[in-house]
Amino acid sequence: MPTLYHSPFSRSTRIITQLMLMDRLDAVDVRPAVVRRQDGSGHHDAANPHPEGKVPFLIGDDGMAIRESNAIMLYLDELNGYPLGIAPGQPGRGAFLSWMCYYGGVVEPAMVCAFSGEVHPAFATAFRSLTEVGAQIEAGLGDAPFLMGERFTIADLIMASAFQWAPQLTPDNAAVRDWVARVTGRIGTVPVMEYEEQAKAALEAAA
Amino acid sequence: MPTLYHSPFSRSTRIITQLMLMDRLDAVDVRPAVVRRQDGSGHHDAANPHPEGKVPFLIGDDGMAIRESNAIMLYLDELNGYPLGIAPGQPGRGAFLSWMCYYGGVVEPAMVCAFSGEVHPAFATAFRSLTEVGAQIEAGLGDAPFLMGERFTIADLIMASAFQWAPQLTPDNAAVRDWVARVTGRIGTVPVMEYEEQAKAALEAAA
Repeated sequence: MPTLYHSPFSRSTRIITQLMLMDRLDAVDVRPAVVRRQDGSGHHDAANPHPEGKVPFLIGDDGMAIRESNAIMLYLDELNGYPLGIAPGQPGRGAFLSWMCYYGGVVEPAMVCAFSGEVHPAFATAFRSLTEVGAQIEAGLGDAPFLMGERFTIADLIMASAFQWAPQLTPDNAAVRDWVARVTGRIGTVPVMEYEEQAKAALEAAA
Repeated sequence: MPTLYHSPFSRSTRIITQLMLMDRLDAVDVRPAVVRRQDGSGHHDAANPHPEGKVPFLIGDDGMAIRESNAIMLYLDELNGYPLGIAPGQPGRGAFLSWMCYYGGVVEPAMVCAFSGEVHPAFATAFRSLTEVGAQIEAGLGDAPFLMGERFTIADLIMASAFQWAPQLTPDNAAVRDWVARVTGRIGTVPVMEYEEQAKAALEAAA
């Protein structure tokens, strides 16, 4: 059984959401971990084996460590028969991988740029901005409800998470806003917020 | 047949290298494209369908667009039966996905930080630095020659590309330097530099 190091209301909340949407939360050993937060609270939890004390961090079925949210989501989807992804060899597989990698390689850096107020030319050249991200999402959606068409996938889950975390950074674009609302609605079908409240209370009680 | 938009001596050189190492360069339609370079040369090539005029950009077998080097490398490896990767379900698959995503989500941002001289706290918190990258590579290698053990994979190709592109940013770490040299040696078994020189000359002649 894989082991997930998880901190409530953090980047690893997406993994809990994915597991709940797959109805596979009981197939993973979830270990709560304290992390350093942007506001200065928290600390590097010695019980968390991530080399930099971050979450999510997964120990796979083979005992090997997996870092980066997009890699963990791809791995867990594969392990469970691709319920929220596009399998290798299926139409759209390349575009699906593209969204998963685009999140880590472009969206997160663009978000951090927007948050920190940095507009160094080297960053703008390398990662562009959330304006381009919005255009990419709008083009990717076309007339479909989700990035991969009719099916909701972990590409929607990870891509929309940026704007659920920071709604004020959502591109001023109706197609993007409507899609974020659809993804939020899908997440609302599982009790992830209740799970996170309990996980937070448990961590605080143990502190 | 997939179509690859490629600019010589750029990020897409890694894709040409991968195709040559798989002996599958003839299985992809390679279209030369001009890109804007850091030194200000070049321009946005109208023939390149990448929304921001970058390379690599792949149109997959299903006609759908694939951006991001790590996604393109994963897709091409899958399409050809995983000759330079770890297949789903195999031991190490999660760690392999982790390296591929870590490159895009951490190594590239850390490289751009190092190049631009930016040390904004938000970036350091989010992406760390090349020091942590070096430690991660050293730990990942252990006593093995390559990141996934005895087998050379596209995880080595993409991870080492950062330090082949910017040798001066290579972490001051013998294990990392030796591994970069091993990867460079493996790449040296195919005539990718000759290919790139010819591609560059052809692009210049057409300009």
